[in-house]
Amino acid sequence: MSHTKSNNKSGEFDLIARYFQNWPTFSDTQTLVPNGDDCLVIKSQSPLAISVDTIVEGVHFLKNSPPHGIGYRALATAVSDLIAMGASPSFFTLALTFNKNETWLKEFSEGLKKAAQDFKIDLHGGDTTQSITDNAIITIQVHGECEHPILRSTAQVGDLICVSGFLGDAAAAIPILEKETLSIYDQSLLHAFYYPAPPINLIPALATQVNSAIDISDGLLADLMHICKQSQVQATIDTSLIPISQANLTTHSTKQALEYALTGGDDYQLCFTIPNRNIKWAQQNKCKVIGSIIEGNPDIFDQHRFHYYQAAAT
Amino acid sequence: MSHTKSNNKSGEFDLIARYFQNWPTFSDTQTLVPNGDDCLVIKSQSPLAISVDTIVEGVHFLKNSPPHGIGYRALATAVSDLIAMGASPSFFTLALTFNKNETWLKEFSEGLKKAAQDFKIDLHGGDTTQSITDNAIITIQVHGECEHPILRSTAQVGDLICVSGFLGDAAAAIPILEKETLSIYDQSLLHAFYYPAPPINLIPALATQVNSAIDISDGLLADLMHICKQSQVQATIDTSLIPISQANLTTHSTKQALEYALTGGDDYQLCFTIPNRNIKWAQQNKCKVIGSIIEGNPDIFDQHRFHYYQAAAT
Repeated sequence: MSHTKSNNKSGEFDLIARYFQNWPTFSDTQTLVPNGDDCLVIKSQSPLAISVDTIVEGVHFLKNSPPHGIGYRALATAVSDLIAMGASPSFFTLALTFNKNETWLKEFSEGLKKAAQDFKIDLHGGDTTQSITDNAIITIQVHGECEHPILRSTAQVGDLICVSGFLGDAAAAIPILEKETLSIYDQSLLHAFYYPAPPINLIPALATQVNSAIDISDGLLADLMHICKQSQVQATIDTSLIPISQANLTTHSTKQALEYALTGGDDYQLCFTIPNRNIKWAQQNKCKVIGSIIEGNPDIFDQHRFHYYQAAAT
Repeated sequence: MSHTKSNNKSGEFDLIARYFQNWPTFSDTQTLVPNGDDCLVIKSQSPLAISVDTIVEGVHFLKNSPPHGIGYRALATAVSDLIAMGASPSFFTLALTFNKNETWLKEFSEGLKKAAQDFKIDLHGGDTTQSITDNAIITIQVHGECEHPILRSTAQVGDLICVSGFLGDAAAAIPILEKETLSIYDQSLLHAFYYPAPPINLIPALATQVNSAIDISDGLLADLMHICKQSQVQATIDTSLIPISQANLTTHSTKQALEYALTGGDDYQLCFTIPNRNIKWAQQNKCKVIGSIIEGNPDIFDQHRFHYYQAAAT
C-alpha cells in the first residue's frame, strides 16, 4: 500500500506525493488506519461492492490523449459499475504504471481528482511503478457501500426497459479524436468520451425502484443482452425511443448515429428495468423508456426492423 | 469486474476463463454477489486491511522469468503486507496486462493458485487487458480481516526486536537469476526469491503478542527504520544475531551475505517488536531476537560496528 513503497526508487516518484497525497475527502468512508503502514484499514457498515478496471494507453485510449480526460475517464468508468449495483461510492485505489513527465502527472491527477469530487469517492492509496515504455497503464479498484445489490439477473416479465442519458456520443467521438479543428458538436462528443457522466443521482432510489440494472460499456444491445441472458427473459425495444444527442445526429447520418447508440459502447450510462408503477420516477429523473421485458428466449427484438439480434447473430 | 469484460475482445482472452475461474475456495470470505455482475459484493464482519502491489516484467523481475514463480511471488509478497498488519487473508483481485502464450498463462495461474492455497486467500475477479509489449504487468490487491491492526508506530521503549525466517536469501539470488548450472545452494536462494514465505502462522497471535510490525520488503535496515521513525524510538541491534541461511553464507562471503540481509530486501519476512515477557512465544515460533528498542532519535545503532545508520546517511 501507499504511494511510497519500494518500487519507487526513482526520484521522479517523489512527484506522486505531490499530486496524489493529502486530497480532501469526498465520502464518509471510515478509515481506521490511513496510508503509510503496511495496509490501509477501512471499516464498512454495509457489504462492499468492488470493481477493478485497467486501461492501457494505445489499447483503450490513444497515445498522447489529454491526461486530464484520461484521469477523469478512468475513475468515472469504474464508478459506473458501482452505480449499476446500486452501491454508493466510498473509496478507490490507483495502481499507476507510467513513464511520463511532471505535466502529464499533474494533469492526470487533476482529472482524477475532479472525478473523485464529482462522484464523492476518496483515493486511499495504491502503487506507482515504472513502465518500460512511455505508455501509461492505469488500474483502478472502486469500492462502494451496497446494502441492496441490484443484479442483472432479476429483470421481471412486464418490466419497462429504461436508459439514462444519451447513448452513442462516446462512440461517435472516436472518429474525431485526432481531428484538429473541432465544431461545437465535435467538442460535445469528445466531452462525452473523456468525461463520462454515469447517473450518480439515481443511486439512492435504485434499490426500491428498479428490478435489474447494468452499465452500458459495451453498447446497449450487448449489455441489455446480459440482462436478458442472466434473467432468462426477452427484451422488445423501439429503437426510435433511444435518446440520441443533437451532436451525434448532426455529426453523423441518422443511421450511423443509431448504430453508435446500439453497439458503440463507452456510454457509461445505465440500462435498467422497472415495474410499470415506477415509470414516473424514471421520467422525473430524465430516463427514457425504450421497451419492455417479455417472456421468451434470451434475445432482443427490434420493433422497427422486425429483427431478433441474438437469433440473427448465431 | 469479472474476467469477461469488454476489454477482452481478443480470442486469446477466453483462456482467462479456463485458468482463472472456478478455483476452489481457500478462505471463508462471504460473497453476496460473485463475479459476473457489474461488481463483486462481499460482506466482511471485521474491518478490512487492503494493500495494492504492481510488478512489472523487466522492472521488478527479469524478462522471461519462470511464470509459475512470478505468479506465486506476486501474491505472496502482497499477502506479506496483510500479515504485517495482523490481518487474516480473505480475498484478492488480479489486474493482469499481458501479451503471452497459453503456456505462460497456465503456469502463471498455477503459481498464483498455489500461493492462494498456501495463504488461504480467494481470487475474486479482476481485469485482464492486452499489453502493447510482451512484458506482463501484474497488479494484485489483497484484502484481509483485521480486528486489531498492528501498526509501525506503536513500538515501545524496552521492546525486543525480532525477525522471522532467514534474511538476505532473495537478494542473494539476484546475481544468480540467469545462471545456467545451479548448485543446491543456488537453488535454495532462487526458491527464496520466487517463493517467499511470509510467516502466515504468526497471524492469530500477533494482536496479543507484538507491539509493532512491518514486513521486510526494502531490507531490514530500511524497514526497521520505518518503525523507528513512526514510533519515534531508536533501535539497537546485534548484527551477529540476524538469521542468515547456510545457502547465502556458502554462496557469498560472510560480509556480502550480511549486507544482503541488512539492505537487500525482497525478504517478505516479518520484523516486529515485543514486550520482554513474550520472548518465549517468539522463540517457539522460530523468530530471532536481534536487538531492542531504546529511547533516542529515530535511528538504528549497530552494536558490532558502533555505527548509527541514519546519522551516517545524512
